[in-house]
Amino acid sequence: MNESLIAYSSLNDFCKELFLKIGCSEKDAQLATKVLISADARGVDSHGVARLSGYVRLWESKRINATPNIQVVHETPSTAVVDGDGGLGLVVAPQAMEIAIRKAEVAGTGWVAVRNSNHYGIAGYHAMMALEKDMIGISMTNASPLVSPTFSLDRLLGTNPIAVAVPADKQPPFVADFATTTAANGKLEILQRVGKEAPEGWIQDAKGGVSTNPHELKDGGALLPLGSDREHGSHKGYCLGSVVDIFSAVLSGANYGPWVPPFVAFLPLPENPVGQGIGHFFGAMRVDAFRPADEFKAHMDNWITTFRNSRSIEGEKVLIPGDPERWMEEERMTNGIPIQIKVKEDLIQLAAKFGLQHPF
Amino acid sequence: MNESLIAYSSLNDFCKELFLKIGCSEKDAQLATKVLISADARGVDSHGVARLSGYVRLWESKRINATPNIQVVHETPSTAVVDGDGGLGLVVAPQAMEIAIRKAEVAGTGWVAVRNSNHYGIAGYHAMMALEKDMIGISMTNASPLVSPTFSLDRLLGTNPIAVAVPADKQPPFVADFATTTAANGKLEILQRVGKEAPEGWIQDAKGGVSTNPHELKDGGALLPLGSDREHGSHKGYCLGSVVDIFSAVLSGANYGPWVPPFVAFLPLPENPVGQGIGHFFGAMRVDAFRPADEFKAHMDNWITTFRNSRSIEGEKVLIPGDPERWMEEERMTNGIPIQIKVKEDLIQLAAKFGLQHPF
Repeated sequence: MNESLIAYSSLNDFCKELFLKIGCSEKDAQLATKVLISADARGVDSHGVARLSGYVRLWESKRINATPNIQVVHETPSTAVVDGDGGLGLVVAPQAMEIAIRKAEVAGTGWVAVRNSNHYGIAGYHAMMALEKDMIGISMTNASPLVSPTFSLDRLLGTNPIAVAVPADKQPPFVADFATTTAANGKLEILQRVGKEAPEGWIQDAKGGVSTNPHELKDGGALLPLGSDREHGSHKGYCLGSVVDIFSAVLSGANYGPWVPPFVAFLPLPENPVGQGIGHFFGAMRVDAFRPADEFKAHMDNWITTFRNSRSIEGEKVLIPGDPERWMEEERMTNGIPIQIKVKEDLIQLAAKFGLQHPF
Repeated sequence: MNESLIAYSSLNDFCKELFLKIGCSEKDAQLATKVLISADARGVDSHGVARLSGYVRLWESKRINATPNIQVVHETPSTAVVDGDGGLGLVVAPQAMEIAIRKAEVAGTGWVAVRNSNHYGIAGYHAMMALEKDMIGISMTNASPLVSPTFSLDRLLGTNPIAVAVPADKQPPFVADFATTTAANGKLEILQRVGKEAPEGWIQDAKGGVSTNPHELKDGGALLPLGSDREHGSHKGYCLGSVVDIFSAVLSGANYGPWVPPFVAFLPLPENPVGQGIGHFFGAMRVDAFRPADEFKAHMDNWITTFRNSRSIEGEKVLIPGDPERWMEEERMTNGIPIQIKVKEDLIQLAAKFGLQHPF
């Protein structure tokens, strides 16, 4: 048996206790847990409890502040810059998105750039916070450099995801959430575990040549921007990753490009930082700042059903962004969340270290 | 000789006279010309004077209103919806972007959704309007359906471009401007003219299979979203094209998806329209709504030089988005703009029809 099924509530209790152990407040521990394990529930296994010990190691090496003083350092009617004080991105990000939503309530839209933060879990969680307010939510973050711009040999961009959540009426919401690379790093990790080759177009080797070796990044290779190569539009993926980097970090005063700090604590911090921590960018747009919300949502229903019911390639279905994650969440909330054996062992060690009960 | 070199000023005078002939005001004729031929100057030949007779045919078939009453129909401090009254997108779009900029001056950011418009030239022109105000400019538009979502056989999205312009200090600005497809339709048109095959990954045939035939769209084929296929992230390109469609049209009350009117006047308008005309979406963000503008621009210079000076694949250079178009503009403003023989013949016919002098 390569995995165990763990109930959401058990996973929730375990993570929360752990965040309390590293010194988070009750409220922050609860929030960080909710954000973190939304990834496990939605099937983005690479961003959930699999990363928990990584966060703890960052805290141990004093790169994460468990009791941050998160502050708005600059604002206008529709914008704010938030300093995360080195806190968990899992806590800083939803608070910043909350500020974007409050700005939108008054000004129609709200836009918040965040500096001095850390990895924030799945981009989609924060974008989806806008939905219940009848707002469109936008979320993006930069990340440590694993991606080479078109024709470059240097790794200058992270997988820099973008999420956009749009409310509908009777239909479930439209939720796009994707890395701006051809394949996310999590997919390489899966190939590494099972010992398989990667498809051409995901990675380049140290000289910029085609590679299918999922370990290539250890030998100076890089992930490729969405589009894979110039002929298939990799300059567009490079543009997207760059926009995420600029909005998240150059606007906020965080580190950008090759200066973004690594997620793994064993790697040194880049020298001569150009800002503080990693950066995020959030947007909230009140739908009724444009047209009546019921009108908008009725047309979104029509948009969604038109796309969903279009003719499909034999054996396939046309999906709406957010469909696979929502189906996964329904299934996992009922049947439990599968935890891979390696992740389980890691979490059991973590429990032992902090003297915690565990459900594994 | 397959092309003639025409001076920018001659092209400008000719286009302006033509827009006056179809009934545009002096001011609108000047603006439409400036927007249209910015494409020729910047090397996006498919979106410049090559389309002039297409605009005229839309006017002849009463699908373009040469004297529109462009109005804000709804607004909040940071948003507006503009009704273009069926005007030239070349006129409606810069006016809407102007409104976004004025909103940003007061509220920090401005976001304008436009309905009842037409094709607006190159996305980048409108985004770049923000630069001289030390703002980030964003521009997107939907377009007639040529693109199939991942796994779909139906054409439901346009090439739906996104442009983002970011000011720098001593460095030229960052200007991304790209279709959310693997290849823009203009590139297929070039292959059709020269009788060459398209690379795999640009188009699918009527059954969703791989095709390299640049004429495939006439036989029920479709352009593919950025990413080409599922394994290389076409679902991400589909997400991007969808976001452009939703922001441009579902927010504004324009037509979306398969209902977007065609650019060519010989095709009938889609039945049972779900909105008015085509839609655009614009954003302007004051840089100093986030941090002091001089600080931001100094860091953009550092971002740009870091990326530009990174190690490159042998024989290639790492470019900054906007570099090729800026170099092209410098060259063409000095030496003239090459006009293809077919386009030239088309423009000479147009001149004859309207009794105009021409420089061709």
